[in-house]
Amino acid sequence: MVKLVIDMMGGDNGSKATVEAVNRFLNEINDCEIIAVGDENELASLKSRVTIIPSQTVVPMECSVLQAMRMKDSSVYKAVNAVISEKADGVVSAGSTGAFLSLTTLILKKIDGVDRPALITPFPTKIEGKYVVLLDVGASNENTPLELMQFGKMGQAYCKAIYNNDNPNVYLISNGAEEGKGSPVTKEAYELMKDMKGFKGNLEGRYVLDGKADVVVFDGFSGNVFLKGCEGLAKMMSSMIKDAFTSSFGSKIGYLFAKKGFKGFKNKMDYKKVGGAFLVGVNTIPVKAHGNATGESFFYSMMIAYNLAKKNIVNEIKENLK
Amino acid sequence: MVKLVIDMMGGDNGSKATVEAVNRFLNEINDCEIIAVGDENELASLKSRVTIIPSQTVVPMECSVLQAMRMKDSSVYKAVNAVISEKADGVVSAGSTGAFLSLTTLILKKIDGVDRPALITPFPTKIEGKYVVLLDVGASNENTPLELMQFGKMGQAYCKAIYNNDNPNVYLISNGAEEGKGSPVTKEAYELMKDMKGFKGNLEGRYVLDGKADVVVFDGFSGNVFLKGCEGLAKMMSSMIKDAFTSSFGSKIGYLFAKKGFKGFKNKMDYKKVGGAFLVGVNTIPVKAHGNATGESFFYSMMIAYNLAKKNIVNEIKENLK
Repeated sequence: MVKLVIDMMGGDNGSKATVEAVNRFLNEINDCEIIAVGDENELASLKSRVTIIPSQTVVPMECSVLQAMRMKDSSVYKAVNAVISEKADGVVSAGSTGAFLSLTTLILKKIDGVDRPALITPFPTKIEGKYVVLLDVGASNENTPLELMQFGKMGQAYCKAIYNNDNPNVYLISNGAEEGKGSPVTKEAYELMKDMKGFKGNLEGRYVLDGKADVVVFDGFSGNVFLKGCEGLAKMMSSMIKDAFTSSFGSKIGYLFAKKGFKGFKNKMDYKKVGGAFLVGVNTIPVKAHGNATGESFFYSMMIAYNLAKKNIVNEIKENLK
Repeated sequence: MVKLVIDMMGGDNGSKATVEAVNRFLNEINDCEIIAVGDENELASLKSRVTIIPSQTVVPMECSVLQAMRMKDSSVYKAVNAVISEKADGVVSAGSTGAFLSLTTLILKKIDGVDRPALITPFPTKIEGKYVVLLDVGASNENTPLELMQFGKMGQAYCKAIYNNDNPNVYLISNGAEEGKGSPVTKEAYELMKDMKGFKGNLEGRYVLDGKADVVVFDGFSGNVFLKGCEGLAKMMSSMIKDAFTSSFGSKIGYLFAKKGFKGFKNKMDYKKVGGAFLVGVNTIPVKAHGNATGESFFYSMMIAYNLAKKNIVNEIKENLK
């Protein structure tokens, strides 16, 4: 039995989205217990299905770590602490990224051998069914070379646990493929990673999604720029496709014929289904859903936490860092 | 009359691509003189149309700045020097980025008030006909806050000259929109840029292409990761569209109907037409074409240099930095 704590209050869409997500989740999954932290009135409809921990306070999106640590009544603070008190496997929140990441790190502690936790996310590639694992996509603003090396190892553990890939390769994002290219930090990281099992060297941005890489290591700043850049471009291209199909009567007919082929395309690029990012490197499974998560995307964030718990990801990480 | 020097030798496709490009260019443009640096035999067919400066040596893609400075017989060295001796307006090369950028900077010198030149490139946005100007997309591996501020000013000058935009806005790439977000370097840059005319604050990667930004400032490392990431994703999505249209008999028929609508789409995302990146901040117009530039994309690189020369971009930059 998996046990997950859900911060029901943090996101832009409030408990409306999270209640919808929890209901769907419990309809589909029958070996998971849910502890829901939020306003008892708003969660009334869930009463028979989940354990409710009451909280009506939401940490503001832009609050500091110190403020977040002081707001002991907030839903996110209570949710993170419930991981300990309820012996839960993970915690999901759509609230302030900064507050959620720092509270999980400070309260639930980092895994031994991890200097900095990282946000990790799979991304679809050119090869059907193959995902590339990207980290850090935004937990840090800057990283040391040692942290980047640890990211590589955590990424490998993730691939082993989630994709049953026994020998995952690791690339380091860079501005050129050759050794000696990169920022001062990535150049040093390259030296540290050189002898690491599966390390394949530098990778340029244009090859991240071509399917050859299992894990790509980014510093948190450029990883965030990369991921959000891809998100923006995918959105733009999708709306261009829509426009192309509605530009004339002929193209509308074309759509009727090609619809089926495009369904797979849409599914693949549907960001909602990516759900959220897992903060890898702490002694639990924290999944950060988008701030503006809908019921659907919050559901997928819960699925991520559930699947990671089933695969015992925290132990896998610990093993890989030994 | 515009005058351009062309390094005919540097790219992966050698003079085959560049000769094709020069011929097309001269067929379409009649107020530009071309000085072609390369192997006289290979350029024989151009003899009546251009001035030829002989060189048979190509700087290796991975040579150091020092090596490049010593290879005085190389096509790129001779091309950069010909900008002075021939009083040319610009120089185009598909050769080693490092060699080309450092030779132009060292030999042709930086503009007063510029600490570091930057690679600048326009990118299509969601809004039809609107481009966003991105810099630095890869001239540097890291940048100071002051350099980022100068990039903003150069980007504005570019918008003024190329798009007749009298009041271009400038955003700073970041991992969050609010003041106080960012890497240590971008946070300091924010402070410096705060009072700059047109500065609009931080911008997340997902909004770079939505059409509201005129100029987005990146450090060279994350700019390179962003641009190449977009390139890779666009390629992947384009091939997915192709697959969607060929996945069944019905979808093939759909294509026949929708073809017209998709032509605009293809044109917009055709990376070949973006051509190359302009190194802004030196006393000339150096345009770096892709290493694997075809005749078509090298032609577009020449067009960039030509158009920038017609708009007197170097003076515009100088004015904007005063």
